Amino acid sequence: MNIKIILEGKIKEPYFKLGIEEFKKRLTGYTSLKIIEVNSISDFVKSNVKQNSYIITLEIEGCELSSPEFAQKIKEIEQDGICNEIVFLIGGSEGLPVDIRNKSNFKFSMSKLTFLHQEAVFILIEQIYRAYKILNNETYHK
Amino acid sequence: MNIKIILEGKIKEPYFKLGIEEFKKRLTGYTSLKIIEVNSISDFVKSNVKQNSYIITLEIEGCELSSPEFAQKIKEIEQDGICNEIVFLIGGSEGLPVDIRNKSNFKFSMSKLTFLHQEAVFILIEQIYRAYKILNNETYHK
Repeated sequence: MNIKIILEGKIKEPYFKLGIEEFKKRLTGYTSLKIIEVNSISDFVKSNVKQNSYIITLEIEGCELSSPEFAQKIKEIEQDGICNEIVFLIGGSEGLPVDIRNKSNFKFSMSKLTFLHQEAVFILIEQIYRAYKILNNETYHK
Repeated sequence: MNIKIILEGKIKEPYFKLGIEEFKKRLTGYTSLKIIEVNSISDFVKSNVKQNSYIITLEIEGCELSSPEFAQKIKEIEQDGICNEIVFLIGGSEGLPVDIRNKSNFKFSMSKLTFLHQEAVFILIEQIYRAYKILNNETYHK
């Protein structure tokens, strides 16, 4: 499964860069993951997101999942076989525009708390890694 | 208000260290914050936590708050005037022992997702900083 994380904005802080790089490295062998920083999510989605992409929008009002439930969600998308990539969309400080939210296949809330966007990318990538550890029955920190 | 974050375990990863240091620095002027790494939370609480400490345990099954609600919570503890410090307790990989959970004044869940302990410290310190920005009506990233 190809996974893309699309972020409106930039990952600037060195600690986020380092942390994200670390988990990207760890994910090699489990899945292909790309992080793409864009100026406009709407423009990006229009020209780059295909029909067979499963779109997960990160929305504070979305559906909260536990880590095992999130792993299960990824497994289900893989097993469905309809989509060959999962695209996570993280909006800028104004959140995601309505047209994008309308295209979402799943509205995912990681927390009721507001996170920095760069922080959201880090938390998400760690959860994706955790999901693959869970799905492969491998030990990982609780 | 004095704030202490007590963590069973160590902050090892360089990206967590860097990120936590950054927010500790930013919090200077808002509050006095100490992070204390301990071998056993139970032992630490027995000998160090005073009657006038407000204990917040981080528990996945606890009560979830939005960032403004979390800020309000801190404000209320300050205004109550009964407690002169807030002590956040973050357990090891086995979570917090029952005796500690029984002493909790507030069980706080940051998410339904499982986080690394070091990550939980980072997310918490960023939320404490966010809380003070909210309480002081200062601009900060959404």
